[in-house]
Amino acid sequence: MANEIKIGITGAAGRMGRMLINAVLATDGCQLAGATEAPGTNAIGMDVGLLTSGLKDIGVHVIDNSKNLFAISDVVIDFTSPKVTEMHASLAGEHKTALIIGTTGLEVQHQDALERAGEKTAIVQAANFSVGVNLLLGLAEQAAKVLPESYDIEISDMHHRHKVDAPSGTALALGHAAAKGRGVNLTDVMVTARDGIVGPRRSGDIGMAVFRGGDVVGDHTVMFAANGERVELTHKAGSREIFAAGALRAAMWSNNKKPGIYSMRDVLGF
Amino acid sequence: MANEIKIGITGAAGRMGRMLINAVLATDGCQLAGATEAPGTNAIGMDVGLLTSGLKDIGVHVIDNSKNLFAISDVVIDFTSPKVTEMHASLAGEHKTALIIGTTGLEVQHQDALERAGEKTAIVQAANFSVGVNLLLGLAEQAAKVLPESYDIEISDMHHRHKVDAPSGTALALGHAAAKGRGVNLTDVMVTARDGIVGPRRSGDIGMAVFRGGDVVGDHTVMFAANGERVELTHKAGSREIFAAGALRAAMWSNNKKPGIYSMRDVLGF
Amino acid sequence: MANEIKIGITGAAGRMGRMLINAVLATDGCQLAGATEAPGTNAIGMDVGLLTSGLKDIGVHVIDNSKNLFAISDVVIDFTSPKVTEMHASLAGEHKTALIIGTTGLEVQHQDALERAGEKTAIVQAANFSVGVNLLLGLAEQAAKVLPESYDIEISDMHHRHKVDAPSGTALALGHAAAKGRGVNLTDVMVTARDGIVGPRRSGDIGMAVFRGGDVVGDHTVMFAANGERVELTHKAGSREIFAAGALRAAMWSNNKKPGIYSMRDVLGF
Amino acid sequence: MANEIKIGITGAAGRMGRMLINAVLATDGCQLAGATEAPGTNAIGMDVGLLTSGLKDIGVHVIDNSKNLFAISDVVIDFTSPKVTEMHASLAGEHKTALIIGTTGLEVQHQDALERAGEKTAIVQAANFSVGVNLLLGLAEQAAKVLPESYDIEISDMHHRHKVDAPSGTALALGHAAAKGRGVNLTDVMVTARDGIVGPRRSGDIGMAVFRGGDVVGDHTVMFAANGERVELTHKAGSREIFAAGALRAAMWSNNKKPGIYSMRDVLGF
Repeated sequence: MANEIKIGITGAAGRMGRMLINAVLATDGCQLAGATEAPGTNAIGMDVGLLTSGLKDIGVHVIDNSKNLFAISDVVIDFTSPKVTEMHASLAGEHKTALIIGTTGLEVQHQDALERAGEKTAIVQAANFSVGVNLLLGLAEQAAKVLPESYDIEISDMHHRHKVDAPSGTALALGHAAAKGRGVNLTDVMVTARDGIVGPRRSGDIGMAVFRGGDVVGDHTVMFAANGERVELTHKAGSREIFAAGALRAAMWSNNKKPGIYSMRDVLGF
Repeated sequence: MANEIKIGITGAAGRMGRMLINAVLATDGCQLAGATEAPGTNAIGMDVGLLTSGLKDIGVHVIDNSKNLFAISDVVIDFTSPKVTEMHASLAGEHKTALIIGTTGLEVQHQDALERAGEKTAIVQAANFSVGVNLLLGLAEQAAKVLPESYDIEISDMHHRHKVDAPSGTALALGHAAAKGRGVNLTDVMVTARDGIVGPRRSGDIGMAVFRGGDVVGDHTVMFAANGERVELTHKAGSREIFAAGALRAAMWSNNKKPGIYSMRDVLGF
Repeated sequence: MANEIKIGITGAAGRMGRMLINAVLATDGCQLAGATEAPGTNAIGMDVGLLTSGLKDIGVHVIDNSKNLFAISDVVIDFTSPKVTEMHASLAGEHKTALIIGTTGLEVQHQDALERAGEKTAIVQAANFSVGVNLLLGLAEQAAKVLPESYDIEISDMHHRHKVDAPSGTALALGHAAAKGRGVNLTDVMVTARDGIVGPRRSGDIGMAVFRGGDVVGDHTVMFAANGERVELTHKAGSREIFAAGALRAAMWSNNKKPGIYSMRDVLGF
Repeated sequence: MANEIKIGITGAAGRMGRMLINAVLATDGCQLAGATEAPGTNAIGMDVGLLTSGLKDIGVHVIDNSKNLFAISDVVIDFTSPKVTEMHASLAGEHKTALIIGTTGLEVQHQDALERAGEKTAIVQAANFSVGVNLLLGLAEQAAKVLPESYDIEISDMHHRHKVDAPSGTALALGHAAAKGRGVNLTDVMVTARDGIVGPRRSGDIGMAVFRGGDVVGDHTVMFAANGERVELTHKAGSREIFAAGALRAAMWSNNKKPGIYSMRDVLGF
């Protein structure tokens, strides 16, 4: 219909891409504007219906031209890789298309491209699009604000064996939230490895401990450990569908918003 | 010194009583006004110095007359039993002595006595005096407010084998906090046992699961379980000294406060 | 092919039934002999291909005649309900068809029917068909044998909100394993509810604490809590496919075995 | 009495030393032969009664001459540092005094000294002297033997903020036990840090994740994570007294044993 929000999906043949397409197709008030994959991949030219459920054609074919996708979409959802996301950010700014970014592992140059695009269009960036994780970000920041520095902060990150980056984007986001609550910069206090005679823990440090194994979708804990007591705030993801659902919620929220870089907490309103 | 706060301790020979006495003796700005035990117990007449560290006399002897204790104290700290606490509440009102209550397992008639005393003097009542638990009460209420009813709430309570009441006072307090966040009454939705063919979980229920064993000081978790994700808020107590420290902090805060029933969150200011 | 094992599936339209069908279709050395559902359900007459992936017919239609299923199958896999399983056990004995039983909540009369059938054919019964749970059963029995009674045993059971029985069959199996290791009967020492002034824990008790919420496939812990330390043995199921895979492994193992009631530990060889 | 086992304690003024002294004084069948501290420390010359409970003198004074301690003891218990332990091992061999070693962080040269002493006297070496941890070592080895390599092994180590080495000796011991069960060397497969773009997990790796904070005595988990399920074996220490009690049990067991390097599993008989 004319006033449905037109949503474009990148990385359409990947696990996340397929889930996003399914979420768009199953949700009222939006329609699938288009879908892209990297040039040369098998999916190019396939009907996305075949790509997802396999049940029937839906008349949208996978293309490799990102420029076209941004031209026809109100919002594009992007869970790809840092370099590709950098390029998408530039196209989003050019076409005034809103952009939802779930890509993790961004470095300074990629983030800079986002900042520039955020001056021209609405961008929602999150390390993790689940409601639960975003609640946890808020609670962790608050706990870190209330508790004195005698409560040592440690973050645990457990993911499946295929994950290539560590700590996870979500673990880093939780670290930034805790650091913010305490009024420090995560980069000044983060400790990612302890091996050998490392000496006593430095007061104020935020530790990151990384587990990898099996097909775990993602478990995270922020721990505050003091003399005599511990407070632990935990999120356990059981299904990737919570991320697709959250990203789509962000996409629909972002339509007609003013330019800027938004967080999932803005979307959820807490 | 003249302007030190005079603190009375009840149940002086018990584990909690001894810890409270040690905390008072080790803290500036307060002094031990007196200490009571039940009539007929061996401790009556002993110097509390002998009772606690055994190192040296401090000139305060254990008495069995509660009336006298309230007469000479600015604040009395009470971790005893519901019936004894009911009597102490009445004495606190009579003598305008502030009262810090850590007794759990209170029933309606005991709580009524507290309410009446709260019209005449300042009373701080908490199921748990640790900073961490009281933070958790705040976070649980907030999470329950933000998350929809599709997030099932379950509470876990693990304590040492000697604990006689279940669920623990802290577990019930967490249940009340979560229920308040969701806008319901805990008594309407609490489920304390599941045994046999109980049918599917009723939406909106708050479950309580109780573990007892070893010498565990107290572990509690409030869990929010939805499709695809779980949020868990946990407190682990490693030492009873956190309760004595918190109760003493409440005692010093309560001095010169207006009559009323206060919570530990009032004391901690969040 | 002639020497493929012919496997029958009951409860074909249910979540577990569909997964079992998919597992059979995807595994070499076996073929789908037939599939049943309760008389009157919509699935009767449908091709199981349509029922599972929806992609293409495979030439096997859902029937409601259990007698026929047992007549044409070498092994039948049954995850249904106690009453239906009782009937299936009788048919298995009659037709000398091996039977794999994952149904939980069986009472004495249902179990009696199994015992009788076990005199005529091979039956594999398990509360839980995963490799990990069956390893845990062995470890829990062993830990209970090594540790003295001063280690209090508590079992935790967390499942999705739709589960109707409590404690879970797996929790009860873990309880039986721990009780066996300690040389007692679970029924003599099991405690399933603690509510009110229950007094101190009785030495030798085995406690069961039940959580229900979300879509959790199944988490179980056996805890041994003593003064100064705890040992906890935990299993977390992330996907029901581990149960279908284990049940199929049992089905293929049971072919040509002597009559008797076997456990999953027999199948796995530890 | 003449046939009581004479026990020497090193590092007498430290937290572990004091607990060991208390354990010896409270246990029948043994007596405190002597106690040492590093030359120049305040404790030299003090009566150990004053050092521990403060209640009364017991007639044994802290000395700084380790040679003398080994000369008068049947067994010496040593929780000090690698360099000191190396020296003690040499004295144990020279005097045919049994030696119980709880020191962690030993490197090749220190371990070599132990091996040489083990040719002349009985040595019990353990990363952790608790019954529960030693049970866990056995269960972890067994689980690693039964489960295929598709179960990824990860080890978690949480200790208080004062701990100077990482991973803990217990975590390394658990890693060695799991590696042994799987038939590999821990040093070939251990991963102690994941930071940055590290790529997918290598099959067969054993990961170590380290947390430090508060006054946590020591929590350890060995995790086996596969597709669809996880098995987790956990130990939580609540009090250091379990280590002192276990070390004393080892000391009494070691008396009159043949030369050799023994483990706590030898002492406990499983």
